[in-house]
Amino acid sequence: MITTELTARDLMTAAKGAARGVALLSDQEKSSALRAIADALEGATSAIVEANAQDLERGRGNGLSDAMQDRLRLDATRVAALASAVRDVADLPDPVGRVLDERTLANGLQLTQVSVPFGVVGAIYEARPNVTVDIAALALRAGNAVVLRGGTAAERTNAALVVAMRGALEAHGVDPEAIQTLDAFGREGARELMQARGLVDVLVPRGSAQLIQTVVTESAVPVIETGAGVVHIVLDDTAREDWARDIVTNAKVQRPSVCNAVETVLVTRAAAERLVPSVAAALTEAGVTIHADEGVRSLVPGAVAATEADWSTEYLSLDVSMRIVEDLDDALEHIRRYSTGHTESIITDDQAHADRFLAEVDSAVVMVNASTRFTDGGEFGFGAEVGISTQKLHARGPMGLPALTSTKWLARGVGQTRG
Amino acid sequence: MITTELTARDLMTAAKGAARGVALLSDQEKSSALRAIADALEGATSAIVEANAQDLERGRGNGLSDAMQDRLRLDATRVAALASAVRDVADLPDPVGRVLDERTLANGLQLTQVSVPFGVVGAIYEARPNVTVDIAALALRAGNAVVLRGGTAAERTNAALVVAMRGALEAHGVDPEAIQTLDAFGREGARELMQARGLVDVLVPRGSAQLIQTVVTESAVPVIETGAGVVHIVLDDTAREDWARDIVTNAKVQRPSVCNAVETVLVTRAAAERLVPSVAAALTEAGVTIHADEGVRSLVPGAVAATEADWSTEYLSLDVSMRIVEDLDDALEHIRRYSTGHTESIITDDQAHADRFLAEVDSAVVMVNASTRFTDGGEFGFGAEVGISTQKLHARGPMGLPALTSTKWLARGVGQTRG
Repeated sequence: MITTELTARDLMTAAKGAARGVALLSDQEKSSALRAIADALEGATSAIVEANAQDLERGRGNGLSDAMQDRLRLDATRVAALASAVRDVADLPDPVGRVLDERTLANGLQLTQVSVPFGVVGAIYEARPNVTVDIAALALRAGNAVVLRGGTAAERTNAALVVAMRGALEAHGVDPEAIQTLDAFGREGARELMQARGLVDVLVPRGSAQLIQTVVTESAVPVIETGAGVVHIVLDDTAREDWARDIVTNAKVQRPSVCNAVETVLVTRAAAERLVPSVAAALTEAGVTIHADEGVRSLVPGAVAATEADWSTEYLSLDVSMRIVEDLDDALEHIRRYSTGHTESIITDDQAHADRFLAEVDSAVVMVNASTRFTDGGEFGFGAEVGISTQKLHARGPMGLPALTSTKWLARGVGQTRG
Repeated sequence: MITTELTARDLMTAAKGAARGVALLSDQEKSSALRAIADALEGATSAIVEANAQDLERGRGNGLSDAMQDRLRLDATRVAALASAVRDVADLPDPVGRVLDERTLANGLQLTQVSVPFGVVGAIYEARPNVTVDIAALALRAGNAVVLRGGTAAERTNAALVVAMRGALEAHGVDPEAIQTLDAFGREGARELMQARGLVDVLVPRGSAQLIQTVVTESAVPVIETGAGVVHIVLDDTAREDWARDIVTNAKVQRPSVCNAVETVLVTRAAAERLVPSVAAALTEAGVTIHADEGVRSLVPGAVAATEADWSTEYLSLDVSMRIVEDLDDALEHIRRYSTGHTESIITDDQAHADRFLAEVDSAVVMVNASTRFTDGGEFGFGAEVGISTQKLHARGPMGLPALTSTKWLARGVGQTRG
C-alpha cells in the first residue's frame, strides 16, 4: 500500500488522477462498486477487528478515555453496520448529471447547467473509524475520489478499512487510487491536505469545534464547515405548556450528545411563572442539570447558577442553560450574540412572533413549535447525511449527497461568435 | 465618516449590525435605495472627479502606468455610466425569498428552503473605482451589507464614492453602516478582512491572479474565487475551416484583455495542414502574435517559438499560443495540465468527440463550436455579473445575483418531537 517513498502530495496527485475515471462512471457502476466495498468490508471483518484491537490497546496505554475507546471500537456487529450503511448509500439516487438550468441564447447557443462531481473530496476527522467508511462511500457515490485524514488513534483500523475498500475497487475495475489515506503522515498529512489547492477540491472537517476551527482557519482548500450547535429554544409569552415541556425535553434528552440537541432555553418574562416550573420538572426528572440565571433559579430551587460561559457552551450532555428574557426582541438579541447558527426554535401561538422569528433568526434551520432534533439529513429525507453545514457558502444545514457535487455549464453551438 | 479611533473590526461589526436591517428590506425598498444611490453618485460628480484627480496626480507621481491610470480615471461620463449600472441592478429581480425546496415530513412538519442574504459580503480588489460601486450595488440588491477594500491608488476616489452611497442610504432611511470601506487601513485592512470570520460571510477577490491567489491562500473567510482564464480552443480532425477561423479569431481579438479570451489553440495533427494556415492568417491580419511549437511554425513562418511558460500564460493581449496535438486524448491531456478551469471549446463535426469533450473537460464552461467569449453573466442572461467563479464550491462559472445569497430552512410544526 503506502511505501515510505510516496509523499502525501503523491497520494493526492494519484487521487486526482483516479477522480477522472470515477467521475465518468455510470449510476450503476458506482452503485455496484459500493456494494463490492460493503462485501469486502464484511469479508475483512477479522483483519479489521484485529487492527482495531491494536489501536485500542495502544489507546489504553495512552490513557484514551472510555468514551473515546467506545467510539473507536469495532466488533463484527459494528463492521456489519458499516457495510450496511454503504449499501444504503449505494441505493441513493445518483446526484450527478442533474440538469439544473437550461437556456437558449438569442443566437441559438444552447446552455445546460448540470451537476458534476467535485473531483477530489478531502476529509479531516477524529478517531471514529465509521467516518472513514461513511465519507468514502458518500464521496464515491457522488463520483468523487477521496483523501482521508483520520485520527492517529485509529490509524491501524483506518488502514485496514482502506485496504479492504481499495481492494474492492480494484477487483471491480475501478482505480483504487480513488481512496487515499494520509494517516501515515501524522499532522504533516493534515497540513498538506489543507494546502492542496488544485489537487483537492473541497475539504470537510468532522469532529470537535477545535478541529473544525483549525481547518477553517488554516485551509487554503475550500472548506464546508460542519459546526458546533449552541442551539436555542425560545418559550414565548403564548407558548403552549405541553408543547414547551415536551419539545424542550425531547430536544435535550432524546440524544444529548449530538449537535442538534438544545443547549439554551430562553423564556420570556411573561411566560416564566407559567412555564418554567413544569419544563424544569420534566428536565430534572430526566436527569438534566439546569444552569440558570437568577430569575429561573427563583422558580427552580434545584438549578445551579449559570456563568457567562454557559451561554456559549455546547454541553453535549444532560446539561441545559436557562434564562428569562424580557420579550421576543431580547430573545433575538441573545441568540444573535451566542448562537452558532445551527438551529433555533420558538414555541409560540403568536403568528406574528413566529413570522418574525423565522425571518430574523440567521441560522441554518429556524423552527416554530418543533424539536430541534429534526435538523438531520435522515429526518429531512435526504437518505444520508454528509454533515450539517453551519456556513453560508455552498450548502447550509443538513447536507445530502448533492452537497458533494459541483456544477458545470455545457454550451452547444453551431459556429456562434460574439458581436 | 471614518475617524482614526475606529478600527477595521469596528467598521465590520457595524456592517454586520446593519446587515440585519438590510436583510429585511423588501424588493421595492432595495430597488429604490439603489436608485437613490444612482442619483447621489450623479449629484456628487464634481466631488468624485476632484477626488479622482488627486488620486491620478499621486499615481503619476508614483509612476502608475498609462493603462492603470486609464482604469482609475473617472470623468462625468464615467460617473454617469456607474450610476446607470446601479439603476440596471435596481431593475433586476430580487434574488432573496425564492423557494428552493419544500417538503412535508410524515409527522406533518413543514420544511421550506428559501434563499436569504449572506449577511456581509467582503470584496478585495485593485484600483478600479467601478468595482466599488458595482459590488456595493450587487451586494445591496441581494440584501447584504458590504465591506470594501479597494486599491490604495484609488483611495480618495473610493472614499468619495462611498460617502455619496452612504449619504443616499441615510437619506433613504437605510442604515449607512451597510457600506464600509477599509481603504484607510492599508494592507492591514485587507488582512483583517480576510480574518473576519463571523463578521464577514463571504469574500470576493477581484483583480490580478496574484491578488486572488493571496486571498484564496490567506483568507479564513470563505472565498469565491473569480479566477484567471488560460482558455483553450481545440481544432479537431473534423473542424469546419470557417468555424475554426472565425471562432478562434473572435475569441482572441474581439476583446483580448478579458478572462474569457482564448489563450491557447490546440490543433490535432490530422487537421493541422488544413486549418493552421487560414486560422493563423486571420489572426496575423488582426495583429495577433502567434507563439507556436515547431509543428505550427513549419506551417506559419511568422510565428515565434513558444516556451514552456507560454502554455500556462494568460496573455490578456494580442498574443496566442498554438500547438499541434496528436489527437483528442492528447488535447484533453494538455488541457488538464495547463487549464485554469475557466472555459474551453472544441470545434468539431464529430458528435462522439463533442460528447467526450463536454463530459471530460473539468472547467466551469465547456463549449462545442462556439466562441469562448460567451462565458459572461450578461451573455448568459443573468442581467449582471458578480464575477466568473473558477472554483467548484457554491458557484461555478458566470455568477448572477443569486450567487450573493445563501439559503435557510424554515420548519413549521405543531408540537412535533422526535421519536
